[in-house]
Amino acid sequence: MNAVIGYYTTQFGELWEQSLFQLVEEAIHGALTSAKLDAGQIDAIFYGNMLAGVLDNNLHAPAKIAEIVGHHLPVFRVESACASGGMAFHLANQYLNAGAGKTVLAIGAEKMTDYSPEQTTRALAAAASGEEQEAGLTFPGLYAMMARSYLDEYNYTEENLAYVAHKNHFHGSLNKKAHFRKEISVASILKSAYVAHPLKVLDCSPISDGASAVVLSADAQLTKKHKHAQILSSEVATDSISLKHRKSLTEIYSSKLAAEKAFESAGISPTDINVAELHDCFTIAELFAMEAIGFWKPGEGGAQIKEQSTKFGSGSSLIVNTSGGLKAAGHPVGATGIKQIGELYLQLTGQADGRQVEKATYGLAQNVGGSGGTSVVSILGI
Amino acid sequence: MNAVIGYYTTQFGELWEQSLFQLVEEAIHGALTSAKLDAGQIDAIFYGNMLAGVLDNNLHAPAKIAEIVGHHLPVFRVESACASGGMAFHLANQYLNAGAGKTVLAIGAEKMTDYSPEQTTRALAAAASGEEQEAGLTFPGLYAMMARSYLDEYNYTEENLAYVAHKNHFHGSLNKKAHFRKEISVASILKSAYVAHPLKVLDCSPISDGASAVVLSADAQLTKKHKHAQILSSEVATDSISLKHRKSLTEIYSSKLAAEKAFESAGISPTDINVAELHDCFTIAELFAMEAIGFWKPGEGGAQIKEQSTKFGSGSSLIVNTSGGLKAAGHPVGATGIKQIGELYLQLTGQADGRQVEKATYGLAQNVGGSGGTSVVSILGI
Repeated sequence: MNAVIGYYTTQFGELWEQSLFQLVEEAIHGALTSAKLDAGQIDAIFYGNMLAGVLDNNLHAPAKIAEIVGHHLPVFRVESACASGGMAFHLANQYLNAGAGKTVLAIGAEKMTDYSPEQTTRALAAAASGEEQEAGLTFPGLYAMMARSYLDEYNYTEENLAYVAHKNHFHGSLNKKAHFRKEISVASILKSAYVAHPLKVLDCSPISDGASAVVLSADAQLTKKHKHAQILSSEVATDSISLKHRKSLTEIYSSKLAAEKAFESAGISPTDINVAELHDCFTIAELFAMEAIGFWKPGEGGAQIKEQSTKFGSGSSLIVNTSGGLKAAGHPVGATGIKQIGELYLQLTGQADGRQVEKATYGLAQNVGGSGGTSVVSILGI
Repeated sequence: MNAVIGYYTTQFGELWEQSLFQLVEEAIHGALTSAKLDAGQIDAIFYGNMLAGVLDNNLHAPAKIAEIVGHHLPVFRVESACASGGMAFHLANQYLNAGAGKTVLAIGAEKMTDYSPEQTTRALAAAASGEEQEAGLTFPGLYAMMARSYLDEYNYTEENLAYVAHKNHFHGSLNKKAHFRKEISVASILKSAYVAHPLKVLDCSPISDGASAVVLSADAQLTKKHKHAQILSSEVATDSISLKHRKSLTEIYSSKLAAEKAFESAGISPTDINVAELHDCFTIAELFAMEAIGFWKPGEGGAQIKEQSTKFGSGSSLIVNTSGGLKAAGHPVGATGIKQIGELYLQLTGQADGRQVEKATYGLAQNVGGSGGTSVVSILGI
């Protein structure tokens, strides 16, 4: 069975001193060091990045990465908006399953803070359909419509959403690599300015720079020498890019499908999961994720989150977004899906320092593209 | 062994009446019809596209394609500049090797003619390194430097290059889907205006729109029911994105490496190949390809091409670019690598109409990203 045998992430944040490919280089070398390998021992690289083409006229990254690594190995760029990192991990795992290589790298990276907010906002809208872009919908706008539907359907208020941000900022305070490392109270979240009603600034993940990389191996001899987490499953599902073609505005159906397949492949169920990294690009998205994956029943999320059972230190059997999630660790788009896998790796191998969850045996990562058009769900275990 | 069991390509050309995703939809439905399948029988889709993000702020195509297909299947977008289509085919084949699906689609598409020449030229430069872009190098400029080096090193003239265009335009005249269907004489090529010395307009492939799709299957029962070509190998190699870091300006080293691996995996040699689709983005590139793959020795290309042995009707054992190549069939970037596979499929299964090569048993496709930073070499056989 394939395993994750190494991980490195750069700091997430406003990294004005480093270029995209300096971050990529740092992540590659960090991950190789973590796995005690040199570049010549890597058979292929999968790279997740969304925005470098749109923001910086920068495509053909596989050849740039070959230049950085100094080898002629196969390098693949994968793009599925905010799920680019998760897709890179998924295909890296398939590449091992195909027997095309023994040990591969999956990297994700994004450079987002060198541009004006208008440029970045427009570029991020590229994850939405042409008709949604033409209608002037930004991503906060799309998720705001989904949040409004959810709050109305289940009779919740903005306070229910605020508990997601409160928890994840606490987790971010425990993670040195997080973009935001400050706890925030529910009251301060509720007082923050609206971005797209009912979502406020503190319901939204930030614009971040960063790069993350994991080493995957199918080589049992190599794996044995390392702290490692087995890859029990990784599954992908899609949905229409436009919200108007969806069955429902109050669920991420692609995540539901991908999770069902992932649990089936892994042979475990939601109650087995101890740590989960979920795609909380907005607070509402973590509730959708909890329900889609089957941790909570549809409509329960708003009430459950107030119980704070998924917060580090609660002693419950499932802790969510120990990295701080996208909300507090930051959301350098392409890096996010890889950082999620990396955080599970740290937790499952006992390397999560001040945020180590006890008895973490199974971990799940859910990475979403756009407003739910793509989902990747991966399950790791020890 | 995996096989190609169906193929469709739209017309290549200036298709102002159709959007990118209308072309994608036509190619998907055409390929499914060719393979007598409906969309529900497809397990995954791999999509190669380079420019939609840069030119049209259009990313997250996997979800758009899911919307078109009307299913929730995994869809992956792959981008490696002009090798995006070849990479999509390569990963589709690996996906089957991984046992992740039984039957998958590989699609490539590009919409390039709706923009100003300045926009398209700038966008295409995204396949070059940042430092090359900053130096003002366009793709004709990069290949012109390589062509200049080759002509000087081996003492050839522009006439030697012109024979590539002459041959491929003749082939284009035989292919109804080609962008250009008019024969051109060597004299007229030599009289055409310079774009970047020594390359003239008629040494360059055009800016085209188009979409192509192939169906790949690992299902022996299904394959048996179809005209099919077996996928004997598909290999990828990379090189530095910047020319200045290359070993040589007169070879595409990544193609050499990928071809060596592909012949080894397929268990055949260059002399076994009867039809080849090579990446002639500029005339010089076909000579580089012929030499890198081992059809001709280094430096022989300029002389050999004048013999016209690779031209349809010559009766020789290897005919090159029967589709018209990028030069005459057109070069809708993401589509090119898939159209190459499709042309081999048509030739190997006896469906190449007025350009059918007799006794075509083995076919090879070589797809290049940028100035050689990425190469994909795939070998099909019957």
